Amino acid sequence: MTALAKDSDSRITIQKFGGSSVATPSRLKRIAQKIAQDRERWDGMVIVVSAMGNTTDQLLSLAQRIAPAPSGRELDMLLSTGENITAPLLAMALHEQGIDAISLTGLQAGITTHGPHRHARIADITPTRILSALGQQAIPVVAGFQGATKELDITTLGRGGSDTTAVALAAALKARQCEIYTDVDGVYTADPRTVPEARRLMTISYTEMLELATLGAGVMHPRAVEIGETYNIPIWVRSTFGKDDGTLITRSVVEDRQRVRGIAQETNVAKLTVYGVPDRPGLAATIFEALGEQGINVDMIVQNIARNGLMDLSFTVAESELAHARPLLEKQCSILGGKGIDSATDVAKISVVGTGMMHTPGAFATMFRALANEGINIQMISTSEIRVTCVIDEPSARQAVRALHKAYELETL
Amino acid sequence: MTALAKDSDSRITIQKFGGSSVATPSRLKRIAQKIAQDRERWDGMVIVVSAMGNTTDQLLSLAQRIAPAPSGRELDMLLSTGENITAPLLAMALHEQGIDAISLTGLQAGITTHGPHRHARIADITPTRILSALGQQAIPVVAGFQGATKELDITTLGRGGSDTTAVALAAALKARQCEIYTDVDGVYTADPRTVPEARRLMTISYTEMLELATLGAGVMHPRAVEIGETYNIPIWVRSTFGKDDGTLITRSVVEDRQRVRGIAQETNVAKLTVYGVPDRPGLAATIFEALGEQGINVDMIVQNIARNGLMDLSFTVAESELAHARPLLEKQCSILGGKGIDSATDVAKISVVGTGMMHTPGAFATMFRALANEGINIQMISTSEIRVTCVIDEPSARQAVRALHKAYELETL
Repeated sequence: MTALAKDSDSRITIQKFGGSSVATPSRLKRIAQKIAQDRERWDGMVIVVSAMGNTTDQLLSLAQRIAPAPSGRELDMLLSTGENITAPLLAMALHEQGIDAISLTGLQAGITTHGPHRHARIADITPTRILSALGQQAIPVVAGFQGATKELDITTLGRGGSDTTAVALAAALKARQCEIYTDVDGVYTADPRTVPEARRLMTISYTEMLELATLGAGVMHPRAVEIGETYNIPIWVRSTFGKDDGTLITRSVVEDRQRVRGIAQETNVAKLTVYGVPDRPGLAATIFEALGEQGINVDMIVQNIARNGLMDLSFTVAESELAHARPLLEKQCSILGGKGIDSATDVAKISVVGTGMMHTPGAFATMFRALANEGINIQMISTSEIRVTCVIDEPSARQAVRALHKAYELETL
Repeated sequence: MTALAKDSDSRITIQKFGGSSVATPSRLKRIAQKIAQDRERWDGMVIVVSAMGNTTDQLLSLAQRIAPAPSGRELDMLLSTGENITAPLLAMALHEQGIDAISLTGLQAGITTHGPHRHARIADITPTRILSALGQQAIPVVAGFQGATKELDITTLGRGGSDTTAVALAAALKARQCEIYTDVDGVYTADPRTVPEARRLMTISYTEMLELATLGAGVMHPRAVEIGETYNIPIWVRSTFGKDDGTLITRSVVEDRQRVRGIAQETNVAKLTVYGVPDRPGLAATIFEALGEQGINVDMIVQNIARNGLMDLSFTVAESELAHARPLLEKQCSILGGKGIDSATDVAKISVVGTGMMHTPGAFATMFRALANEGINIQMISTSEIRVTCVIDEPSARQAVRALHKAYELETL
């Protein structure tokens, strides 16, 4: 009871700054000014930063010029330098504001990971140095996106992993909240570039945000949302230099009237199909184990019932993974005696997300009807309790999102 | 006796690649090919790399845009990323050659340092991971220029510190030799761009190289030479992609006929004078302690006898340090009751170096005469046992070096 009271009394906040908001020295200076202002409201602040602008892409491109498929260990070592540049620069900018600050790599911050390189998971956080800095009224500036194994090998947490660093630190430090500063000022009912009527949500539940994050709403890393849910960390998604409150991701969202919370779209996606495979148990396991061993993240899997003992199986991967995935699938197809494989990149995934869908008869059907009314063909369908996703032709994506936003009356709620 | 025999049997070599030879991915690929070829001659190779091209300058410039005088700790964190980019890229390039390799930061390589940030010194090397890699026939690629304190704070070893990393690793691993690959193909009697007749030396002693290195011959970091001398590590200075043997820095150089080994020149130098200071004990200590505390490396110090109880004291610093040093000296001057200070950047240091100078009457005078014959005024003089250095006007530097090269007959020996 005492421990609980103490936790909820915590006056520590985590602020994560990423993407374009840390792209230049002058923006880092503005962030330092912002931190200086926010500081008075908190007993302790911990900052997490991403790589500056397109540094990560530049580093990846250097690696590509040397090796088409570089080793995960070496790639992690290379990519971690991106955040290791931002962190000391922001610490320097804080010093210029008269604030004591020290930069910490993931290793120095005590972030231990397990699992494969490039997609490592945080196993444990021993925040000795962070606590010691906070005890001295200094602000720790932690390089996001990275950790280290017990053998001190550098690992990275996958794209967008700085969000994960921030929320995991919030959990480890029992922080009051975690603030994710980004280019957008919150979570919207749809991408405002596609749907001008899209509204910013004041609050969204972890579960709903998780579906939106997984489905390419692009605002937050899904694993960060998961950790937030597990440890019940309120997460704010806000614009770095904007004035709005942003969107609060939290557990306690009760909105009866609301059936659907947002429409997500994803176009950097490729569709793969293996067809005419003799049906037998363990088929899917064989195929997806082979892909998993090569570190390929498979997204949406659709398998229909077999016809004449032959089975077709489709799934999507990130477009950038297709070159890796296709030859692997060809090999599996030949091993399994399938007729052939097929792939396409001109597809888009459109999803409708909302807890309200759970107990709302016809909520799924609204989506299919809306798409049919627009003459848009549905290639694949996959559903969860609170989400329905359709794969359609990429050129129709924009039209589909706008039609769905209207069909679910998201602009009026 | 057994241990000694074992040491001399070592078939490990250290190869250090720096500067422009690691500037691009294609050059890293060529280095990987070179290592693949050299590999057969050795039982174990350890590679040390510098930052790519002008990365270090770019990082410094980022810091300058945020803070005019950034904290040493944060600057070390920032600058170390330069080498941390090269190392994994070279490891990837080695993988492409079918060679097992792992990159290691200074921390991972077990390089522990003490002393101030930006100018840390190697206290100890615990090469556990390097030895484990060598035991598995893998090539460790170590990020040069850096280490870590016992508290795991990142430190750097000062400009050119990758040479120090390489020679210190050679000592720790009892390597047969250390090879420093660079843009030039060896140590010359003078800068060939200034003196076309300059000759490459086949061998040079540690002591002579130390004077040349300190005096801006620019080929090697002086601390690396010192460590080489202490542990008697043969050091080769060679061109990365050239075919010549280069210059061997070693203990056993016996060349009776040779009186002077080379002429060094340095133009990125500033001269500072504090004049009219009431003479009393501890004067120099007061001034240079103040500069030392701010991390300013003072180079050549000249203090003449006092006249009328008043003393003038001159010294040189790197041109880039002048902006820091001048206000500090002004403060010290006012504290000590001096008349004023003076500084100039249009000066050059010209040095004549060679063990032969020790017991050669008139060897110093040859320098002064040669400069006088050219009508070049000498502003400051400083000598060591094997070196004489004059500060002159920068515009006369080229003329002075050519005249000295001729006066000491370096082109004919």
